[in-house]
Amino acid sequence: MTDTATLLAVAVEEARLGLAEGGIPIGAALFGPDGELLGRGHNRRVQDGDPSTHAETAAFRDAGRLRGYGRTTMVTTLSPCWYCSGLVRQFGIGRVVVGEAETFHGGHDWLAEHGVQIVLLDDPECKTLMRDFIAAKPELWFEDIGE
Amino acid sequence: MTDTATLLAVAVEEARLGLAEGGIPIGAALFGPDGELLGRGHNRRVQDGDPSTHAETAAFRDAGRLRGYGRTTMVTTLSPCWYCSGLVRQFGIGRVVVGEAETFHGGHDWLAEHGVQIVLLDDPECKTLMRDFIAAKPELWFEDIGE
Repeated sequence: MTDTATLLAVAVEEARLGLAEGGIPIGAALFGPDGELLGRGHNRRVQDGDPSTHAETAAFRDAGRLRGYGRTTMVTTLSPCWYCSGLVRQFGIGRVVVGEAETFHGGHDWLAEHGVQIVLLDDPECKTLMRDFIAAKPELWFEDIGE
Repeated sequence: MTDTATLLAVAVEEARLGLAEGGIPIGAALFGPDGELLGRGHNRRVQDGDPSTHAETAAFRDAGRLRGYGRTTMVTTLSPCWYCSGLVRQFGIGRVVVGEAETFHGGHDWLAEHGVQIVLLDDPECKTLMRDFIAAKPELWFEDIGE
């Protein structure tokens, strides 16, 4: 099993890419049972004017059509919102690695209640990315979570 | 307020478009407070090889970036799966009109518990579209709901 820090690094790289593009710095990646990368992506609200592309849905889309997500791991820099938590539950993604849940507390507890393995990290870089972004562009952040 | 049959007709038209393209016949549309059409779309798993585009997420994307979904209505031919229910909850979409929940029972009860107004119809055409599709291509249907 690939360690979670290695997996998280891909999601953080995606978040940084999003930030460099002027977007919301949340990244995610989907990995297979042996740690193989299946898909990766980041929030694209700003870049594509697309409110439906959150980091997790971008990574999920990038992986293409698959059967059986039970042994896959979704890694995300931030606790997944209800939309992305719903994605995980519907498709039966077996494990979610969360970079941090301090700047936003999404649906990871709900997922745990429904049998998803949650690995909750407290990653300083993930927190800094979000804290700086929310401080700089609060209206964009609240738009992205529908508040 | 536009009546639900008029709203549902747009979603059904989208579902039929999807079917004609060889795809999964589920359609949706997002309407504003005065019944104005904001966005519409259908499942595109087959057409785009994109598992992330369900009917509701397609309609939501098509509406572009908006602030405040509380007075919008999402109309869908089929009870929304967890993924699409999560979308509705996260963005605070105020009302969901469901064409039918007999061929698939998604998260509409959960949404009702969380304050979303649910209008559950029992539309014969929506049911026929799904029944015929599931009978013809069961593997595609189960892929689409992660089973």
